[in-house]
Amino acid sequence: MRSTLKVLIYYHIPEYVDRYENLLKTAREDIYLITSKNEKQIDQFIEIADIIFSGSSFPVEYLSKAKNLKWIQSMSAGVENFMRSKVIPAHVLITKPKGIFGPHMAEYVIGYILALSQKMKRVFENQKKRVWDPFIVETIHNKVAGVMGLGSVGTHVAYKLHLMGVEVIGYEERERNLPFIKHEYSKLELNEFLEIADYVIITLPLTENTVGLLGERQLASMKKSAYLINVSRGPLVQEEALIYALKKHQIAGAVLDVFDKEPLPKEHPFWEMENVIITPHISAPSLPEDLAKIFLENLKRFEEGKDLIGVVDRARGY
Amino acid sequence: MRSTLKVLIYYHIPEYVDRYENLLKTAREDIYLITSKNEKQIDQFIEIADIIFSGSSFPVEYLSKAKNLKWIQSMSAGVENFMRSKVIPAHVLITKPKGIFGPHMAEYVIGYILALSQKMKRVFENQKKRVWDPFIVETIHNKVAGVMGLGSVGTHVAYKLHLMGVEVIGYEERERNLPFIKHEYSKLELNEFLEIADYVIITLPLTENTVGLLGERQLASMKKSAYLINVSRGPLVQEEALIYALKKHQIAGAVLDVFDKEPLPKEHPFWEMENVIITPHISAPSLPEDLAKIFLENLKRFEEGKDLIGVVDRARGY
Repeated sequence: MRSTLKVLIYYHIPEYVDRYENLLKTAREDIYLITSKNEKQIDQFIEIADIIFSGSSFPVEYLSKAKNLKWIQSMSAGVENFMRSKVIPAHVLITKPKGIFGPHMAEYVIGYILALSQKMKRVFENQKKRVWDPFIVETIHNKVAGVMGLGSVGTHVAYKLHLMGVEVIGYEERERNLPFIKHEYSKLELNEFLEIADYVIITLPLTENTVGLLGERQLASMKKSAYLINVSRGPLVQEEALIYALKKHQIAGAVLDVFDKEPLPKEHPFWEMENVIITPHISAPSLPEDLAKIFLENLKRFEEGKDLIGVVDRARGY
Repeated sequence: MRSTLKVLIYYHIPEYVDRYENLLKTAREDIYLITSKNEKQIDQFIEIADIIFSGSSFPVEYLSKAKNLKWIQSMSAGVENFMRSKVIPAHVLITKPKGIFGPHMAEYVIGYILALSQKMKRVFENQKKRVWDPFIVETIHNKVAGVMGLGSVGTHVAYKLHLMGVEVIGYEERERNLPFIKHEYSKLELNEFLEIADYVIITLPLTENTVGLLGERQLASMKKSAYLINVSRGPLVQEEALIYALKKHQIAGAVLDVFDKEPLPKEHPFWEMENVIITPHISAPSLPEDLAKIFLENLKRFEEGKDLIGVVDRARGY
């Protein structure tokens, strides 16, 4: 039997759309798929879509036309694009993937923390120059990692850091009481939190309340020896303030996977800053295999009238 | 009361000798210390030394003069220099530090495995060229790490890899039955072990039995996609065979902290091999603070006639 629910898929890389189509069709022949690879196709078919399966690159301006829309499954953990749209009726469910990005982000965060403590940039430069330059490698044992945001991703990152022997503190609105976190700081204690962390790791959702959360004053609270690691969204940090803090060596450095504007513009000062590591938004790869599985599980639940997994709280904004 | 035991300290970096002197004198005023910063001083004083506190840079040719010698505390985990000397009488105890290198080496190994999976060399090069080049980062989850040698260091490295979600197998002469190791391979199963590991990590001691253990045939048993990581001693791997395997891409690459000759000579082919990462023997820093503590604990035991910690089995050679 052919399902009557019409699913519109969009992703900004056309070959990924093909991969999704393949994965979903292989798993369920009966699925009614509308694959769209550009805005024109979205514009053409969004009116009949019951479900949208797409990520943070979805052009939300077309949502006003989605008269049949019942559910959006986001491919991204960050759903701020959908949240910003004011035309999604309250009855439309929005879900985000849970549990798949944490392990990737933990590897990214631990990898780059170790890249810093092991001075890998220097190691790679030395090799090019054939320079044998022994130095004392710092251990991360008993360093303090401050994880901002103890959602699904932040919790996993915190847990793995704990397993690596790092002391972990958390910054989170709602108390979590996680056994591997030494102390949780509330919204009012942000400065105390920032003052003691050797690594400040941002895994917060981007919402009206968190945009620009780290500005001049907050960055000045950080240790001079501390590093900022942002794997969430660029606008959580005020970019001008961060550039200033890095240039003045108010903090030791930053590892940035996300930016106000992506791709990071060629002329951006971050590119040539010695104390910045830039990665091109790769800390949590959105693998079609993982996301198709999540979508199929939720689709089954949707058809059976059960609760979906990863439902976004529209009031909180994430 | 002044101890009557005369302790000769030698380290190849003179300022370290000063640091050791400071640390030991601060802890115990009564200690009879002979600090030597060069071979001439060793030659002059070794005859009266009861105890030698030194590392793998100790020039063992002077040991024949050490008529009073009762105990050597090595600063290095590798004691092959002392083992090679044929003039150390059987009654002389040799001890090596235990428990301090494992945590450092685990950070090094996990750090470089993540540097490989996260393609950090490429990331750093891209930044210099202001290139935004998103790629799919591999996860190390469910990769197989093969740890060769499950001594104090290897066990710690294996445990931390396990905590990071890597599947760990071991190669070890004597069965250890460690719960976090999926399978232990014996001496006769080296090839089977090498065939399934994605990362082959060498933490074996260098002895008559292990020198040159990985040669042409063993390297050919490894997966084409596998990496060799050597944090023990260079001569465990036949260097010519390794260069060949790397040039012919029989293996994906190597992370090398140790070499046949150190410092690695300027003209050595490793320096410019794209699939080799060279570090200057820094994976386990010998911190005077850590080693002085170990020495003082063993000195107390020695004076009280108790068993020392980290006694080397002279028959096994480590």
